[in-house]
Amino acid sequence: MTQVKAYAATAADSGLRPSTIERRTPDANDVEISIDFCGLCHSDVHAIRSEWAPAKYPLVPGHEIVGKVTRVGADVTDFTVGDSVGVGCMVDSCRTCDSCLEGFEQYCENGNTGTYGVVDWRNGGDVTQGGYSSSIVVNEGYVLKVPKNLDPAAVAPLLCAGITTYSPLRYLNVSEGDAVGVVGLGGLGHMAVKIAKALGATVTVFTTSPSKADAARELGADHVVISSDAAQMADAKGTLNVVIDTVAAVHDINDYLRTLARDGALIQLGLPPAKMPPVDPALLVRKRLAYGGSLIGGIAETQEMLDFCSEHGIVSDIEMVNATELDVAYDRMVAGDVKYRFVLDNSTL
Amino acid sequence: MTQVKAYAATAADSGLRPSTIERRTPDANDVEISIDFCGLCHSDVHAIRSEWAPAKYPLVPGHEIVGKVTRVGADVTDFTVGDSVGVGCMVDSCRTCDSCLEGFEQYCENGNTGTYGVVDWRNGGDVTQGGYSSSIVVNEGYVLKVPKNLDPAAVAPLLCAGITTYSPLRYLNVSEGDAVGVVGLGGLGHMAVKIAKALGATVTVFTTSPSKADAARELGADHVVISSDAAQMADAKGTLNVVIDTVAAVHDINDYLRTLARDGALIQLGLPPAKMPPVDPALLVRKRLAYGGSLIGGIAETQEMLDFCSEHGIVSDIEMVNATELDVAYDRMVAGDVKYRFVLDNSTL
Repeated sequence: MTQVKAYAATAADSGLRPSTIERRTPDANDVEISIDFCGLCHSDVHAIRSEWAPAKYPLVPGHEIVGKVTRVGADVTDFTVGDSVGVGCMVDSCRTCDSCLEGFEQYCENGNTGTYGVVDWRNGGDVTQGGYSSSIVVNEGYVLKVPKNLDPAAVAPLLCAGITTYSPLRYLNVSEGDAVGVVGLGGLGHMAVKIAKALGATVTVFTTSPSKADAARELGADHVVISSDAAQMADAKGTLNVVIDTVAAVHDINDYLRTLARDGALIQLGLPPAKMPPVDPALLVRKRLAYGGSLIGGIAETQEMLDFCSEHGIVSDIEMVNATELDVAYDRMVAGDVKYRFVLDNSTL
Repeated sequence: MTQVKAYAATAADSGLRPSTIERRTPDANDVEISIDFCGLCHSDVHAIRSEWAPAKYPLVPGHEIVGKVTRVGADVTDFTVGDSVGVGCMVDSCRTCDSCLEGFEQYCENGNTGTYGVVDWRNGGDVTQGGYSSSIVVNEGYVLKVPKNLDPAAVAPLLCAGITTYSPLRYLNVSEGDAVGVVGLGGLGHMAVKIAKALGATVTVFTTSPSKADAARELGADHVVISSDAAQMADAKGTLNVVIDTVAAVHDINDYLRTLARDGALIQLGLPPAKMPPVDPALLVRKRLAYGGSLIGGIAETQEMLDFCSEHGIVSDIEMVNATELDVAYDRMVAGDVKYRFVLDNSTL
C-alpha cells in the first residue's frame, strides 16, 4: 500500500479537506498513475453532499483524471512508465457479461465499479477513491491513452463530459447534414456542441439565458434558441434530427420533442432529482420519435473519442482551480458560474 | 356522383344507422371499389362518439376495407376491374413532401387524408366517408393489392391493426433471436404476436387477464406474463429487445421499460385519453433504452406487409357481424369482448 495525498469530504456538509488515502500496490495488470489534473463534475457535488444516495465517508471524488504512468504490473503491455494516460468514470467491471464483452462496460450487467464512492469488491473490498488525489492504481483495461497534441488539463473533462456526449452522437450515427440540438450549455452541453460540429452536424443550442447566446456561437453553434421564448421555440419545431439534453433539472421534455423531425431522437443525459412532466405519446407516435437515454461510454469508445478529439483539436474549455479553492468552485458549479469545466491542479493538493 | 348504401352516425349518441352517401365519379387516377368487408377498429368508436375530437356528422367510419375493383380511371395501370384490393387508414396525402416521397405517407408533412371524417381538400372538400358502405373511390396510389391465398374478410384488419404492428417491428429490424414483448392482447396485440413470431422472434405477451394466457399461447406466444403479478414482472426484467405496447388506456410505461435489455426499445401505439405517469429517465440512461411511437405504415410498406402475411399465411382472427349488429359490436369492443377483431359483412348494409 502507498499513502497518497487527497482532498476528501468527511460528511455531507464538510466540504473538501486535505486528507491521506491508501492506494494498493499494483497487481500484475495494474497501472499506477501520478495524477496531474482532475476535472470537477457536477455529480461530484451530488456525491459528497449525499444528494443522490448516502455517501461512504471519507470520500475523495473525481472521475476526470489525467496523469502519467509511474509504475506498471508485470503483465501490463500497453502502457509504460511516463505515458500520458487518463481514467474516467469506471475503474473496473465484470469483463464477462455480454455488455463487457461487447465493449459496453458502462452497462456491465454485474455492475461496473465507479471510480469513487463504491465498494471495490473485485479488488479487496475497499471503497474506491477518486481523482482529487496525487495518484491512483487502475487495472490496465480501464486506462486511456491521452493524445500528445492536446492540453492534458483540458483533456480531463473529456473523460466524463466528452464521452457522455460523444457516445450518443455516435450511437445515432450523427454525421454531415444532420441537425443536432443541444439543451443546456454547461460542461456536457459545450462538449456536445464541439463534438457534433466536428461530426459535421448543424448545431442549435437551447438555453434559458439570452446571455449565453454569444458564448454558444463562439463554441460553434449555428443557431441559438432562447427556450423561454415561445416564438423561437415554435420556429424550431420539427427542425432537428437529434437532441442531446444535458439538463439535470426537472423540465418538460415535450418542448424539445416538438423540435424533432420525423424519426428524430431526444437523448437525455441528466438525471433530474424529481419526476419529470409526463411525455405526450402523441408526439412520439405522429413522427416516429424516440426518447432515450445514454450513460457515459465504453472503454474502447472512450479511446475512440480521445483520438477523434485529437484529430479535430477538441478539448474542454476549462478554468483551473487549486485544491484550496474546491469548495468555492463547487458553489460556483451549483450556481452555473463556470465556462465550462473546472479542473483541479493536483500539484496543489 | 354515385349514391351508395352506408351505415352512419348522426350524433355522438346516435349509434350507426342505415344511410346513403355519395361517392365521386372516378378521376383518371381513381379506383372504384365495391366493398365486401370492413374491419371494426376501436378508433371507429372514439370517432363516431366524438371522444377524441368533435366529429363531422353524418359520419361513416371504417378504415380496414377489402373489396373488388369495379371501375378504374383512364390513367390507372396497376389495377383492373375484378382485382381484390384493400384500403387502409389513408386515402391521400400531399405526395410532394419528404415523407411522402420516401414512402412514409402516414407522416405526410402537409397532413395525410384520413379514410373517414376529415375534409378531403385535395378532392373537392367533402368530408371523407369510410368503409361501412357499399363502395368507395380512392386514388390508385392509396390502394393495396390483396393476396389471393388469404381469406379476404380476415385480411381487412391487416390494413390497420396489421400494418400498425408490422411497421415498428420492421423499423426496429426484429428478426431471428430477438425477444419481443407485446402489451395488451386485442386487435393490435394479437397481430403483433403473429407478425413477431413470423419474423423469427420469441414472443412474450403481457396481459392483465390470466384468462387470456391460453389464448396468447394459441396465437403463438412463447411466454405469458400476468402484468398484475409483481413476481412475474420481476422475472421478466431485462429480458426483451423490443416491446410493442398496444394499450390505449393510461398505464405505467416504466413497468415495461424495466423488461427491456440494453439497447431495447418500447414502442407505444395507443394514445391514452389522459396523461401517462412520468417516464423515469434513469431507466432510459442505465440501459440506453428508447421509448418511441409509431403510426400505421406507409403505402409501400403496407403492401410489403400484405405480401409478408401471404407468404406466412397470416390473417386476423375475426368475428363477422351484420350491419344491424354494429352497435352491439361497438359495446362489446369497448368491453374488450372480441377475439380479436370484428369484421362487417358489407353485403348486409
